[in-house]
Amino acid sequence: MKKTFIFIITFFVLYFTASSQNKDSLTLRKIYDHYLTKSLCYSNLEYLTTKIGGRLSGSPQAEQAVQWAKKAMYAAGADTVILQPCMVPHWVRGQEEQCSFNSPKLKSETTLKCTALGSSVDTGPKGINAEVIEVQSFEDLEKLGEKNIKGKIVFYNVFFDQRKIRSGSAYGETVKFRAKGASYAAKYGALGCLVRSMTSVADDEPHTGNMYYDTTLSKIKIPAVALSYKAAEILHETLLKDPKLLLYLETHCQTLPDEPSFNVVGQINGTQKSNEFIIAGGHLDSWDNGQGAHDDGTGVVQCIEILSAFKQLGIKPKHNIRAVAFMNEENGLAGGTAYAKFAKEKNEKHLAALEADAGGYTPRGFLIDTTNGLYNLAVKWESLFHPYLVDRFEPEGGGADLIALEKLGVPCIGFEPDTQRYFDIHHTAADTFDKVNKRELELSGAAIASLLFLIDSYY
Amino acid sequence: MKKTFIFIITFFVLYFTASSQNKDSLTLRKIYDHYLTKSLCYSNLEYLTTKIGGRLSGSPQAEQAVQWAKKAMYAAGADTVILQPCMVPHWVRGQEEQCSFNSPKLKSETTLKCTALGSSVDTGPKGINAEVIEVQSFEDLEKLGEKNIKGKIVFYNVFFDQRKIRSGSAYGETVKFRAKGASYAAKYGALGCLVRSMTSVADDEPHTGNMYYDTTLSKIKIPAVALSYKAAEILHETLLKDPKLLLYLETHCQTLPDEPSFNVVGQINGTQKSNEFIIAGGHLDSWDNGQGAHDDGTGVVQCIEILSAFKQLGIKPKHNIRAVAFMNEENGLAGGTAYAKFAKEKNEKHLAALEADAGGYTPRGFLIDTTNGLYNLAVKWESLFHPYLVDRFEPEGGGADLIALEKLGVPCIGFEPDTQRYFDIHHTAADTFDKVNKRELELSGAAIASLLFLIDSYY
Repeated sequence: MKKTFIFIITFFVLYFTASSQNKDSLTLRKIYDHYLTKSLCYSNLEYLTTKIGGRLSGSPQAEQAVQWAKKAMYAAGADTVILQPCMVPHWVRGQEEQCSFNSPKLKSETTLKCTALGSSVDTGPKGINAEVIEVQSFEDLEKLGEKNIKGKIVFYNVFFDQRKIRSGSAYGETVKFRAKGASYAAKYGALGCLVRSMTSVADDEPHTGNMYYDTTLSKIKIPAVALSYKAAEILHETLLKDPKLLLYLETHCQTLPDEPSFNVVGQINGTQKSNEFIIAGGHLDSWDNGQGAHDDGTGVVQCIEILSAFKQLGIKPKHNIRAVAFMNEENGLAGGTAYAKFAKEKNEKHLAALEADAGGYTPRGFLIDTTNGLYNLAVKWESLFHPYLVDRFEPEGGGADLIALEKLGVPCIGFEPDTQRYFDIHHTAADTFDKVNKRELELSGAAIASLLFLIDSYY
Repeated sequence: MKKTFIFIITFFVLYFTASSQNKDSLTLRKIYDHYLTKSLCYSNLEYLTTKIGGRLSGSPQAEQAVQWAKKAMYAAGADTVILQPCMVPHWVRGQEEQCSFNSPKLKSETTLKCTALGSSVDTGPKGINAEVIEVQSFEDLEKLGEKNIKGKIVFYNVFFDQRKIRSGSAYGETVKFRAKGASYAAKYGALGCLVRSMTSVADDEPHTGNMYYDTTLSKIKIPAVALSYKAAEILHETLLKDPKLLLYLETHCQTLPDEPSFNVVGQINGTQKSNEFIIAGGHLDSWDNGQGAHDDGTGVVQCIEILSAFKQLGIKPKHNIRAVAFMNEENGLAGGTAYAKFAKEKNEKHLAALEADAGGYTPRGFLIDTTNGLYNLAVKWESLFHPYLVDRFEPEGGGADLIALEKLGVPCIGFEPDTQRYFDIHHTAADTFDKVNKRELELSGAAIASLLFLIDSYY
């Protein structure tokens, strides 16, 4: 009797598990069909990147992007769209940067492709003319000391490690020179700072990105610039032959007063849990030199499309589902910080937060915080994602815009596409719409929407 | 005593298993480092695609490619390079194709981008001028019958199914219209055959590819042409408004007498098994309209690099390792057939054969025949590939050039990259060197070389 009872219970547990897996599998198939045949990801991205274009925080284009995102979210079926205010930095590049060197010894004058780093001060119209000292590390600076550095331009010529399989790891290793290189160099009396672009491709595109002045290292702010891969090669080669060459650097960037801006938050209201939220977002701002396509127009349009997919497929989520277009990821994180502040103030309970900010490429998987059991739950869904070639569920964190939410204990998720091509174009003039493949964009969008559907159903 | 004995045995088994896994893991790391920092994959591909270019079987470029591959294999460190003769078809495109329609009803004349299909007969200089009948399937032809088809041009307007996650599945469904569409149409008296290009991208590039005349359907050979996606859309839209429009088609392709050609086979001699072989290859020939970069220059250079990696890393294989550049995959498989014939004649025992012919994209995994236990062995190596983001080991077959070997009972392997972008450029003028990403090319090459190393060690 007892055995029969256990058998019946086991049968029903297995039956309902299989049947709900089957129902989920059908819903995932519908979400994928939506993204692959009906979604507006690609046309939305085309508008954002080619009609609005590069949209650094505080720029008129960033403001246009806010208005566009609001409309796009309503068009996608949002029940409500909230504009969350935040004050953002307003850095402008100004006139094109000049970098050249004159080597009387080699009788050559060479122009180098370069780009000012975000938040950098300018050289002023008279520029800087100084010798260059090449280093590989912050330790090199210490060894060289003030006597060898003072009055010179420090050149961090550190390669992106091609051997790293995840290109983000190579980025992680070198980005410190971009971020803090100027303050380290200023500490020893340098006049300027050059960094080799953080890139895996040997071309002539300089890669910008944010830097900051670390006043614990030096109170003096010196101009910081990135050289293209090729420019770094040329400078390195020439320095070997003529270590005394004089490099001329001229930049016109400025930091203007902070501007008001917004996160744009599109919501589908939950049917059961009116104060519980699951969010997925990308960042709306981008660098000014390109169109902000892979970084991060793709993340924004993929997440907006979740609203459309849920509405059109009749998925009625239990919790409030939000697509978030964060402002100011690139140079300040004001949007991410504001989002968490509002969530805390309003006592909004966030079950999970996902960010898509690694390019609009083929989906590979999710990096999921182990907080609150979300990771352990999500790995059980691997078989549902297997037919969609999404194989990686790894216990790691979310994106930069989620740092403040993560500190509040919200389990965060980083969406992981295939990033092998990302650092070819990251933060360059080449980050344009034509670099995005429609199918790759849509497949990744579908993976994100599918994960949100499952979190809403089971978490 | 017995327990102690079992414990000791277990300890040593585990110890040696772990230690050999560790040793293998170090070798894989070295193979990846080689491909990512020293390999000639990218520069070899540049030469093959931009200096030699499109290289259809029988063409002077195909002959140049044979000579180039021989040199490249010796340069990579081959102990010997064998040229295996085979007779190949020699089809030439001739003057550019013309396709246009005149709709007196709509008062419009429109030119459509098209490309003759490989092996097709020509229209002759006078072209064909006829009404068009649009169909979705072979069954449609049967329903329409001779009375509706005779004297017309049949237009197979069948879409690539975007919902398929593996783009190869969508290709597999539609390629039958390219392959046999002309003979099916000729059966009902059609004068010509148009197919919508097999592609996932809505552009104006027509996709060629091989067709053949199935004499069991019809003894009459009619010209066959592919329209670009956009051209197919225009024709479809116009036919809705003017079903009687006259389409003009002019092609100048010809099939010349067969030519002698070669597979190029570079070998590293095995240290223990002089008559046992493990091979990896791609195909050297390509369509004439592009540069044959992703199809299949990438497969060829990835496999040639195996010789270089093994030699430079001091890997001394037990079995003979061969990199094979097959001839004539695109329109005849003469090379694949010849390879198997020679293997049989010389009693060469082939342990395993891999083909890389799905584009030079990011690696995803391997499709492995279940014959002779190879698949069951290979799945045990998944953990070794995990750090390299190669996750898929699936029980399926190899590539087109391996069909004849597969019939001899050789377990075959298809290398699987991420193919989402493949059918954007497959068989078009846009299959060019600049579409190949260096890192993606190298990572896939390293995955293939690593698998060959493991097969050599354990199979």
